[in-house]
Amino acid sequence: MFEITLPSAKMFKSCVDAIVILIDEGEIEIGEEGLKLRAMDPSQIAMVDFELPKSAFEKYEVKPTRIGLNLDDLAKVMARARPDEKLTMKLDESKARLVLLFKGKATRRFVIPLLDIGGTMPKKPQIEFESVVKFNGNFFKEALKDAQLVSSHVVLRTDPDAFIIEARGDKGEVTIRAEKNSDQIFDYDVKSNARAMFPLEYLNDLLKNADANTNVELSLRTDAPLRLEYKVGDASITYYLAPRIETT
Amino acid sequence: MFEITLPSAKMFKSCVDAIVILIDEGEIEIGEEGLKLRAMDPSQIAMVDFELPKSAFEKYEVKPTRIGLNLDDLAKVMARARPDEKLTMKLDESKARLVLLFKGKATRRFVIPLLDIGGTMPKKPQIEFESVVKFNGNFFKEALKDAQLVSSHVVLRTDPDAFIIEARGDKGEVTIRAEKNSDQIFDYDVKSNARAMFPLEYLNDLLKNADANTNVELSLRTDAPLRLEYKVGDASITYYLAPRIETT
Amino acid sequence: MFEITLPSAKMFKSCVDAIVILIDEGEIEIGEEGLKLRAMDPSQIAMVDFELPKSAFEKYEVKPTRIGLNLDDLAKVMARARPDEKLTMKLDESKARLVLLFKGKATRRFVIPLLDIGGTMPKKPQIEFESVVKFNGNFFKEALKDAQLVSSHVVLRTDPDAFIIEARGDKGEVTIRAEKNSDQIFDYDVKSNARAMFPLEYLNDLLKNADANTNVELSLRTDAPLRLEYKVGDASITYYLAPRIETT
Repeated sequence: MFEITLPSAKMFKSCVDAIVILIDEGEIEIGEEGLKLRAMDPSQIAMVDFELPKSAFEKYEVKPTRIGLNLDDLAKVMARARPDEKLTMKLDESKARLVLLFKGKATRRFVIPLLDIGGTMPKKPQIEFESVVKFNGNFFKEALKDAQLVSSHVVLRTDPDAFIIEARGDKGEVTIRAEKNSDQIFDYDVKSNARAMFPLEYLNDLLKNADANTNVELSLRTDAPLRLEYKVGDASITYYLAPRIETT
Repeated sequence: MFEITLPSAKMFKSCVDAIVILIDEGEIEIGEEGLKLRAMDPSQIAMVDFELPKSAFEKYEVKPTRIGLNLDDLAKVMARARPDEKLTMKLDESKARLVLLFKGKATRRFVIPLLDIGGTMPKKPQIEFESVVKFNGNFFKEALKDAQLVSSHVVLRTDPDAFIIEARGDKGEVTIRAEKNSDQIFDYDVKSNARAMFPLEYLNDLLKNADANTNVELSLRTDAPLRLEYKVGDASITYYLAPRIETT
Repeated sequence: MFEITLPSAKMFKSCVDAIVILIDEGEIEIGEEGLKLRAMDPSQIAMVDFELPKSAFEKYEVKPTRIGLNLDDLAKVMARARPDEKLTMKLDESKARLVLLFKGKATRRFVIPLLDIGGTMPKKPQIEFESVVKFNGNFFKEALKDAQLVSSHVVLRTDPDAFIIEARGDKGEVTIRAEKNSDQIFDYDVKSNARAMFPLEYLNDLLKNADANTNVELSLRTDAPLRLEYKVGDASITYYLAPRIETT
């Protein structure tokens, strides 16, 4: 049983959007310390790791439990959130459904059925990253759009001075070079150069909910999965994405 | 024969949009007192009753007549209206076509053929409504979008304290409750509680041309058609919509 | 060999958009005096004549040459230009590819392959026009939208007092009359009345990149091709469009 209230329904909408981009159904753990969801996408290429700490809530009365949800349907309900609305979530009497109360000018009540999903949370990948770069979400999104003109894959790499995004294909080549001291790079920690190739379709998805105001941290290791992390209010969203083998 | 001029072509555009949402072809009565059109939609589920009084016109020289029009085509012409344009309508020399003159910076002349429609105007439904609620168009439109998440039908009902919009389906339940004293309710006159179910597709259509600045009056009677009424400038648009039988 | 730099990449984007609307592949002549491209559209109904003088460039180091390009792909690269970015173009080492450098906050490098197109530049049509009318692009675009309601063709004509756009079809008639002294007509030079009919689809294309701030010069001769000309920064875009035979 639980009854939890967030001061901003919109903020939870952004969290759900960042999860649903990878997975359609999933289990949210409602624990002593907060909400948690970790899951692989159906094709096993990407993982999302979401955490929203108890401290983000106005009210947090919880007997730890896990609830399975159709996240697509949850996202559609959350899309109805308006600015200045609070969100209260609780189980209904039968315990088989989640009640979402949006409280603003009017009170709107949505009830969605729980799913029996089961399975266990996958473990976090343990990777010793070689390079960590921070930038705003928009910079990276735009660079990916540049790359998309010529390929469906992109090479991300670091050298001692710059973070470099590269793509090449029949239609030509694209190179975006952001110097470590430029406006666009907030933090640049390169122990050794890293280089790996990733599918653009997935990268676009991971960035979809980041914007010009979002600081994104990208961790790279040569031919290893990347980690991409950003905050949505008090929540943290971490993605892992498997590399593609470069064939030249 | 007639020659009539409205100070705002845009306002007539809004009127035509509110009619064409239900009917594709229709007869406008150009009478001593103003324009009038009343018609059922092709599926006989909804009726529109439109009136634009003589007083709304700058010039109103009319020998009463009725003109049949393809309202789809009329709506496309009216969509070309610009702010600050006047609209003059008259029959052309042959009397078989309607001339629309938009006068602003340039003069634009559109001529559309008349249709031979015939038939008689349906009568207004006589219903003794139990509840009358006034609100802004946007509030109701948004509530219908909420409901649409779970069903293609919606229950509208009143109790002594609130106007309630409800929907339920396989995907869950939605309830929006607007208290009679809330910001969203301008007027609340409930002789006795009313409750009826309506198809969302039609309701959305009826509201399509109402917005946050439109005061909408909704009249309900249990398991009877609803009446929904609002003003477009000096024109009044009244819709009737048949209920659906609730099966639980 | 060449290396040329424009102060505004966005301006070159607009030029490419104005060309690509008619032709997918073409040869740009990079000459002593500037850039030039003249080509017929594949259906041989319209011609574009583009000139961008040397004076528009910050840097213009050129050994005259011609480069064949997939203009569709070039337009996609140019669509990535941002305000305040400079554009440098040069051949790459192998000379088989065009390098485009966008320099703003970051440096972005696009490389696209050259095409072997060959052929010769068509000659400019020599027409003694009877009427020349100047107006803003938006006025004409809107008039074409009016005309489109009833036909896929439009008659453009001048009389001593006005520039007139007419269309007629099964759905009715449209006439737009812009008096020579009206706000919309900047210049009106009618030696003798001209009248010709043109396909709307093409006219729409020619105007696509003109807007309310674009002064358009239209030259007409009865049953002869029209010439339509406007500036994009320092560049001039001239289109010729063949008339259709009027059958009444």
